[in-house]
Amino acid sequence: MNSIKPYIIGIDIGGTKLATVVADTEGTILRKLRWPTDSQRGPDAIVDSLIEMAHLTLSEVGVNMADVAGVGVSCGGPLDTETGVVYSPPNLPGWDAYPLKDKLGSALEIPVIIENDANAGGLAEWMFGAGQRCRYMLYMTMGTGIGGGIVIDGQIYHGANDSAGEVGHQILIPEGPLCGCGQRGCLEALCSGPSIARRARELIAHDPDTLILELAGGRLESVRTEFVVQAAHEGDALALKLLDQTAYYMGWGIANLVNILNVEVIVLGTVAVAAGSLLLEPMNRYMRRFAMSRPAEVAQIVPAQLGELVGDLAAVALVIADQIERTRSGTNSTLSQ
Amino acid sequence: MNSIKPYIIGIDIGGTKLATVVADTEGTILRKLRWPTDSQRGPDAIVDSLIEMAHLTLSEVGVNMADVAGVGVSCGGPLDTETGVVYSPPNLPGWDAYPLKDKLGSALEIPVIIENDANAGGLAEWMFGAGQRCRYMLYMTMGTGIGGGIVIDGQIYHGANDSAGEVGHQILIPEGPLCGCGQRGCLEALCSGPSIARRARELIAHDPDTLILELAGGRLESVRTEFVVQAAHEGDALALKLLDQTAYYMGWGIANLVNILNVEVIVLGTVAVAAGSLLLEPMNRYMRRFAMSRPAEVAQIVPAQLGELVGDLAAVALVIADQIERTRSGTNSTLSQ
Repeated sequence: MNSIKPYIIGIDIGGTKLATVVADTEGTILRKLRWPTDSQRGPDAIVDSLIEMAHLTLSEVGVNMADVAGVGVSCGGPLDTETGVVYSPPNLPGWDAYPLKDKLGSALEIPVIIENDANAGGLAEWMFGAGQRCRYMLYMTMGTGIGGGIVIDGQIYHGANDSAGEVGHQILIPEGPLCGCGQRGCLEALCSGPSIARRARELIAHDPDTLILELAGGRLESVRTEFVVQAAHEGDALALKLLDQTAYYMGWGIANLVNILNVEVIVLGTVAVAAGSLLLEPMNRYMRRFAMSRPAEVAQIVPAQLGELVGDLAAVALVIADQIERTRSGTNSTLSQ
Repeated sequence: MNSIKPYIIGIDIGGTKLATVVADTEGTILRKLRWPTDSQRGPDAIVDSLIEMAHLTLSEVGVNMADVAGVGVSCGGPLDTETGVVYSPPNLPGWDAYPLKDKLGSALEIPVIIENDANAGGLAEWMFGAGQRCRYMLYMTMGTGIGGGIVIDGQIYHGANDSAGEVGHQILIPEGPLCGCGQRGCLEALCSGPSIARRARELIAHDPDTLILELAGGRLESVRTEFVVQAAHEGDALALKLLDQTAYYMGWGIANLVNILNVEVIVLGTVAVAAGSLLLEPMNRYMRRFAMSRPAEVAQIVPAQLGELVGDLAAVALVIADQIERTRSGTNSTLSQ
């Protein structure tokens, strides 16, 4: 990639929406386009849309493809970052060993970097958000699932086959609740948004005197994690108990991760951002209780800072990090020929 | 360090024995000296012994200090690899913030690298043993404790303050048996040598009809893990049950590590080496049952290969890895001036 080229295209492929952005190499987003994914159309049709969107976004800011350094793509995994092949992400039916990088690369004729969304999101939080200036960072989404991204010295840690950082599938209780992955008692099966809601419904079934149920219109099946968080902010006892349980499991799981990875900053998304210190304060406490003192000394769990922007910045950050790495390793000149 | 200098001194500081070796830069050990630690003497006296031993070992092979590239020191942690300060290892009373690197360096007048024994042992298994030619390796001792060392691309992963790889203190059961670290239900409290013996005694107290008890001379308090392994090799049902429990906990814990680190080879020491496939076969099976399929695909738990040599080779490997890294990063010429 040529570091002289001043623009970057970012592509965020979600299960319900597609986004393309044009940014400069500082990460400033100049333009954004958002279309529904309509995931039933299959990968080829979605890639056609993405190509159209990329050209449209560029033309809206008056930039030529010749001035674009590269395309960063944030997408559900599993995927192979080297070959650029995507393997059946749960949110994208029909993407079975789909050569995303090749398809986009040959259509757009510029270098493409693909990355799973949790890794790319972690990189964005490191570059622009809560993990700035730290050498050892762990990012954990805390939304529909608990994805993870390990960022060391500004680079994503991929592991042997791009499967590292699956921290949400750390099994805490082998006889615990069923997880989407097929196992039982994963951190994700205890603390993802839907899992917190499930635990809330279980508790409310026995103890319906709670603001959570009121916020759900009195319907147990309508209980969502947002209502738990909202009720906790208003001091509801059951909601606070649910957040404390969540903090316990997360603190325990993160303590294990702190002992293994010795990271300085653990950046948590979605639910942690919404709940704030109600969740993060006890979570940090449990983490310190369960972790060894030396790694715990330097570790801090903090809320993510990028909010809704994370997907766009994730895609853009991939290209910027690649440029930094190429400069550092001295391979820039070769590739920009 | 000057890569032209053909010899390396390795120092292994254990709670009961001290060892110095002289090796060439291929890792061939030319001479070894072993003295008791007598740990009550305190660090200064031990360092005096080590300096004497180093000179003695060198003179026995007729090598001058001027031909030694550096000293690698494998020592109980926690310690700071940069400053070379050792912080109260459990097996070395009185070593409280002791500046080991400075003391050795100023006495021997050559560069010193210090490293905790589990990390250094992992590096040795990567360089000379079961982890050769793999990019992502995890080493786990399985002796008195369960130490861990993460080796990526031939370099030890240290984390933010040299505390990474404490995989033995992954908490599996917060209400489980007490661990030496003060927590409950750590992997170490379930599967270290002494922990297996403790579980054996608990089971035998209720079910004394086992070869294990016979091997222990009929005395419950004399039951040791060696007897469990020996009885298992002879088909004893209780011993096999104990190994299966051990394999279950280890397989569960390693599955979590595989999901997080996506390593290819997990090298296990001591007990795993003694028990062999009786332990490793079910452990690999449990690991695959609990890990996600993609990281599990490339992961394999194998026995360590260096046996008693690990401590000596650990110390030597530190200097060799440092030389490789300096050559790779181009800092060799600067430092060898």
